[in-house]
Amino acid sequence: MGVATARVPMPEGKENKIVDVEKHTIAVLVENKFGVLSRVAGLFSARGYNVESLSVGETLDPSVSRMTLVVTGDAFIIEQVLKQLHKLIDVIKVTDLSDEDHVEREMLLLKVNAEPANRAEILRIGDIFRAKVVDVTPTTYTLEATGEESKIEAIIELLRPFGIHEVVRTGKVAIARGPKTRLRKVEEKLGKPREVVRPHEDPKVVGFAD
Amino acid sequence: MGVATARVPMPEGKENKIVDVEKHTIAVLVENKFGVLSRVAGLFSARGYNVESLSVGETLDPSVSRMTLVVTGDAFIIEQVLKQLHKLIDVIKVTDLSDEDHVEREMLLLKVNAEPANRAEILRIGDIFRAKVVDVTPTTYTLEATGEESKIEAIIELLRPFGIHEVVRTGKVAIARGPKTRLRKVEEKLGKPREVVRPHEDPKVVGFAD
Repeated sequence: MGVATARVPMPEGKENKIVDVEKHTIAVLVENKFGVLSRVAGLFSARGYNVESLSVGETLDPSVSRMTLVVTGDAFIIEQVLKQLHKLIDVIKVTDLSDEDHVEREMLLLKVNAEPANRAEILRIGDIFRAKVVDVTPTTYTLEATGEESKIEAIIELLRPFGIHEVVRTGKVAIARGPKTRLRKVEEKLGKPREVVRPHEDPKVVGFAD
Repeated sequence: MGVATARVPMPEGKENKIVDVEKHTIAVLVENKFGVLSRVAGLFSARGYNVESLSVGETLDPSVSRMTLVVTGDAFIIEQVLKQLHKLIDVIKVTDLSDEDHVEREMLLLKVNAEPANRAEILRIGDIFRAKVVDVTPTTYTLEATGEESKIEAIIELLRPFGIHEVVRTGKVAIARGPKTRLRKVEEKLGKPREVVRPHEDPKVVGFAD
């Protein structure tokens, strides 16, 4: 697991490590209970791993949350952590999305100085990145942008000269490409009743009953 | 703290509690070190609180991360948790954004069945919500949408009849409205008894520019 991913450089501002570090995007389906989040995060920190980014949100089933974690580290230790994750009682499913083709996005909210002389240029930059203006004051714009990490970092860099007040980024979220439903195992583990008809036999049946 | 927020119903599928529950959106600036995330999450779980949503991303300073947490609970206990949060050594700043006007957004990735007969209608719904198609297969579309919780839930409900394969939501992120960087230090408030001037009574108490 994780061996297929590309080697990535460490982010700026962190120590240079010329070792086999790989960036892993891991999706974890968990029961939506208190304590689960800290146990999952604790597994990584106990190994000395930092979680670069993390997002947790509800799924179609309100009793189940989905976490997307991005961790950078050597494949062997990450595999160990994934195994331990599997063992946690409230963890339903763990997927290392780095192993497969997937879409990765994050969202940015950015408040930037908007002097009258600069407003047109800021909006032009926003347009190019398909950013939306979500708040305006006489002296600032707040923009929302979504995209891959490189796009998010590009818009930050372009707006930096105007004076950035505040930057808020969601962690990354990721979804596998392709038609398959990745969540089929979930119901089985949860003991939920399931339609007998398989999705590939009847494409109108989705294997996730709410 | 939190007194100004609206009372919110508990989400579906959770126990009905007809008590003074309030939804709090809390921004926490932390050192980007391992273990911080699990300590912060642990503080809430130790109190029996569930974190409804959580996002962690980098700020302009790569050594600092910003967490946005949404917790629902009674104001008194949340205040206690905020006090404890502030005592954590790697926590730089804690802000309860519920106290002030703010923009709250989340992002959704959604994979939906797209039978040829339904494709036009799915795209129409997407257009209305300004969603982007980020992946296409012969049988599915993957859409990306951003907005407030109510908008995200509306698009999910509209697409549900077509057969949703997978839903991935970032946690919420929030940024204060207005020109100032209003990451008011909670400790200023927390150092004082609860009765002392509340932010909404004295809007000029801002302080602490980033």
